[in-house]
Amino acid sequence: MIDRADDLILVRASPFNAETPYRALAKPITPVASHYVRCNFPLPSHGGMLTVGGSVANPLRLSLADIAAMPAVTVPVTLECAGNGRVGMQPLPVGEPWAGTAVGTASWTGVPLASVLALAGPDSRAVEVAFLGADNGPYKGGETVHFGRSLAIGRALDPTALILIATMMNGDPLTPDHGAPLRLVVPGWYGMASVKWLDRIEVRDGPFDGPYQVRSYVYEWDDGLPEPVSSARVRALVVDPAPGAVIGLGPRTVRGWAWSGGTAVTAVELSTDGGDAWRNAELGEPVGDWAWRPWSCDWTPGGEGRHVLRARATTVTGETQPDRPRWNRQGYGNNATLAVVVDVRANGRDEGEGR
Amino acid sequence: MIDRADDLILVRASPFNAETPYRALAKPITPVASHYVRCNFPLPSHGGMLTVGGSVANPLRLSLADIAAMPAVTVPVTLECAGNGRVGMQPLPVGEPWAGTAVGTASWTGVPLASVLALAGPDSRAVEVAFLGADNGPYKGGETVHFGRSLAIGRALDPTALILIATMMNGDPLTPDHGAPLRLVVPGWYGMASVKWLDRIEVRDGPFDGPYQVRSYVYEWDDGLPEPVSSARVRALVVDPAPGAVIGLGPRTVRGWAWSGGTAVTAVELSTDGGDAWRNAELGEPVGDWAWRPWSCDWTPGGEGRHVLRARATTVTGETQPDRPRWNRQGYGNNATLAVVVDVRANGRDEGEGR
Repeated sequence: MIDRADDLILVRASPFNAETPYRALAKPITPVASHYVRCNFPLPSHGGMLTVGGSVANPLRLSLADIAAMPAVTVPVTLECAGNGRVGMQPLPVGEPWAGTAVGTASWTGVPLASVLALAGPDSRAVEVAFLGADNGPYKGGETVHFGRSLAIGRALDPTALILIATMMNGDPLTPDHGAPLRLVVPGWYGMASVKWLDRIEVRDGPFDGPYQVRSYVYEWDDGLPEPVSSARVRALVVDPAPGAVIGLGPRTVRGWAWSGGTAVTAVELSTDGGDAWRNAELGEPVGDWAWRPWSCDWTPGGEGRHVLRARATTVTGETQPDRPRWNRQGYGNNATLAVVVDVRANGRDEGEGR
Repeated sequence: MIDRADDLILVRASPFNAETPYRALAKPITPVASHYVRCNFPLPSHGGMLTVGGSVANPLRLSLADIAAMPAVTVPVTLECAGNGRVGMQPLPVGEPWAGTAVGTASWTGVPLASVLALAGPDSRAVEVAFLGADNGPYKGGETVHFGRSLAIGRALDPTALILIATMMNGDPLTPDHGAPLRLVVPGWYGMASVKWLDRIEVRDGPFDGPYQVRSYVYEWDDGLPEPVSSARVRALVVDPAPGAVIGLGPRTVRGWAWSGGTAVTAVELSTDGGDAWRNAELGEPVGDWAWRPWSCDWTPGGEGRHVLRARATTVTGETQPDRPRWNRQGYGNNATLAVVVDVRANGRDEGEGR
């Protein structure tokens, strides 16, 4: 079953890529059918087994039943596509034209990766762990590859990182769009690390050089050395009113979410005047240690017409959103404050919704 | 009578500011009621007289009848607000949040400025000519001023510049939004030079220092000396499909306009793949020497989903559009190629329209 909400925002039909609709972003937990979907290849079939091999004492071949029998945990995790906001970068980078809602929060249930790796017993040569999905196809029209990403051995083995081999999303078995039957979930990192249709785990004695590790999902800076994409950068999203909304003149509460790759968001500010005045928003409780945090701020529009809202989040370490993105060729990690244009009318009834 | 189309895109209700709707941009000549409107102050009343004074041999006081009795010319002129596209600049500059259609082309009828100045007889001290509107109010909440701009004496006296004291727009008397009963029209320059509700012309023996000359409508660069805003920069606009349009899968012709401040546009290219591939568009005849030029380019979308269109114009002198704007504090002159997002669907019926 491919469960897709009617208002999921199509970015590409084949392979399927879509953004989360604003309606779904009103909720702390994004419904499965409305959660953004990123696919690099067509939906694959999965053999129902997970192999764990490489530099390990005890190679494993686990069935879904074996995995279901292991102790599982449930963690709400905000996942964001590394290319979210790409279309707002100037010059326009290459890649899928994600606008601003390739983000969602789900409650993931699965076996801790650290537990599975402990069963396999990485040996002393282990430096990285690669994760290969069942999805495959020609990479940029060339050689056929499987999607795959790696993590450093220390992070992969760290039980506090709460990396999961997930079998359920929001309490139901994974759907095909979200990696059924098994998906890695790496809290705090951009979504590319959370390998879907997880088929094979390979403990390695050297760096993994799959193309999605070393060619795609790499920051190629104008003015610096290339860097692999990893943690999600601090970002706030205005959810209500949505971009393009037609709203009334009266006082209202502007609402949204803020998150960062594993670092607590401690402040959100809102600008409503199109100038440089920022006011502190109120913060609600985070949905979880690895999930977004709600914020809200009262606002009375100054008059009819176009108004520009901007939200800006800051973490406990002082990291904050820039007012222009640091450009990179593939357009990753755009966490610049976003100008959200809304239309205020005396007779506005909160119609309209961002694309 | 305030004649305003229902779909004029409101930017600010008071003073009234609005963009041209995409529907109206399908036409070479923008209907008056749909032409973008920029006001700095509330609509003024105008005394029905034009004075011409200062460093002149023969100060004038002209009635509307006097002006109507003079030989008039009709010229199609593309006017664009200097702040058009401001909301696409990062960081967000101060000022009205113009998106991308604060532009329009009208057929203006009026008396050449050079003829009126010849009657007045500027003397040898004349270096500039200031134009003052009847509109007035506090400048940024401070001192009360009239809107006013100036031109160098050489340009003001140049009959080939076709600067008009306009009385008609598209064959009808000017409307209040567009400067009734008299408006300066300065072809090739951003709209701020085309002073509305023209009340007084002052030939000066020194530079005009009104706040709209020396404080607003000035490029304040991060990395250079301030410059007064003058000519419109080269720019192409995609009009069909409009931003946000839901369109079908079949072959189609992408259409738009291109213009530059008095310099001929000689090429327009279109990118439809979100990459760096550009194809030459076909150019149609310019609507006039001082007006935009139509272009078109065939395109068959590669599949369902989001597609990003970008058009790029180049002039006879080789000036072309940058792929990111040169930022300035007040956000003027954004002529960067614009990423126009459209939604392709198998059942698309060209619904939707950009904001």
